[in-house]
Amino acid sequence: MLTLGIDPGTAIMGYGLVESGVSLSGEESSTEELRLVEYGALRTPSHAPMIKRLPMLYAGLQELLKEHKPQAVAIEELFFNKNVRTALAVGQARGVVILAAAHAGVEMAEYTPLQVKQAVVGYGRATKEQVQAMVKIILHMDHIPQPDDAADALAIAICHIHSRVFEMMTRDRGSA
Amino acid sequence: MLTLGIDPGTAIMGYGLVESGVSLSGEESSTEELRLVEYGALRTPSHAPMIKRLPMLYAGLQELLKEHKPQAVAIEELFFNKNVRTALAVGQARGVVILAAAHAGVEMAEYTPLQVKQAVVGYGRATKEQVQAMVKIILHMDHIPQPDDAADALAIAICHIHSRVFEMMTRDRGSA
Repeated sequence: MLTLGIDPGTAIMGYGLVESGVSLSGEESSTEELRLVEYGALRTPSHAPMIKRLPMLYAGLQELLKEHKPQAVAIEELFFNKNVRTALAVGQARGVVILAAAHAGVEMAEYTPLQVKQAVVGYGRATKEQVQAMVKIILHMDHIPQPDDAADALAIAICHIHSRVFEMMTRDRGSA
Repeated sequence: MLTLGIDPGTAIMGYGLVESGVSLSGEESSTEELRLVEYGALRTPSHAPMIKRLPMLYAGLQELLKEHKPQAVAIEELFFNKNVRTALAVGQARGVVILAAAHAGVEMAEYTPLQVKQAVVGYGRATKEQVQAMVKIILHMDHIPQPDDAADALAIAICHIHSRVFEMMTRDRGSA
C-alpha cells in the first residue's frame, strides 16, 4: 500500500510517500517493513496571490498523484491551537489537497496530531523532535528528513499505514 | 460586466450574479444600472465528509462558471472575528472557490467586509440588515434575497462592480 502523507500549507506543503507490503485487501504480511519512496515540499512564492498559489499547489499534487498513484492520501485533522489567520490559510491549503485527492479518485484519511504521535512514537505527548527521530528510524534514513513539513507528512503517512494494519488485524480477529 | 459574487462556506455557499453595462474596457456608460441575473446557494449534506462536500461545491461552481461565463469572481477577504474552527472551514471553501475560478481562467477579486458595506450602503459600519435592504433596492428586487449567504454574495458582486467603475472613472480622469 502506497500512502501519500501531506502537511498542508500555502507557502510550503510537505509531502511524503511511504510504501508498505500491506495491501488494502489484507493478502500480504502485515509485519513487512515500511519503505520510503519520496519526500519533499511544494513551495509557492510568498509575493504571489492565492489565486496563483492554490492552482500551483493543486498542479503539484496532481503530478504527484499521477506519477506515484498512491492508494491513499492522509492529512492531519483540524487543529485548534493556532490563530484564526493560520487556520484560514491552512483551510485553503487543505481544500486544495482534498479536491486533488477527490478528483484523482484516491481514498482520503485524516488523523489528529495525537493519533500521529501515538502511531509513530507510541506516545501521544511526544515532541516534534521525537516524532522526526522516529520517522528517520522507521524509514531507515540516515538523517532527519527536511524540511519539517516533509517530516510531518511522512509521519502522517506512517500513521495511516499503521492504522490500516491495525484495522486489518482487528478485522481478521473478528472473523476468526 | 457580469460578476459572480461568492459567500464561501462548506455547508452552504451563497452565490449571486450581477450584470452591469460597464465593460472592462470602459467603453460603455458607467452610470448604467445593475441587473440581477441569478442568485442562490450551493448546499452540501452536513453528514458527508469534506472529501465528498468540497468536490460537490467545486462541481457546482464549475457549472455556474460554464453556464454564465462571468468576467470576474468576487469574494470577501479573510475575516478575523470568527473562531478557528469556522476559519478552517471557510478556508477550505475559499480554496475551492479560488481553484474553480483559476481553473476556469476567470479574474478574481477580494474585498473586506468594510469595503463591501461602503460600496453597497455607503457606510462602513452598516448592519447586515442595511446591506441586505440596499441589495434589494439596487437590484430592483421585490424582497430581500434569501438565504443570507446569497444576499451577501450579491453584495460582494455589487461591491466589485462599483469598485471597477470607480477605478475606470479614476483612470479616465487621469488620461483626460
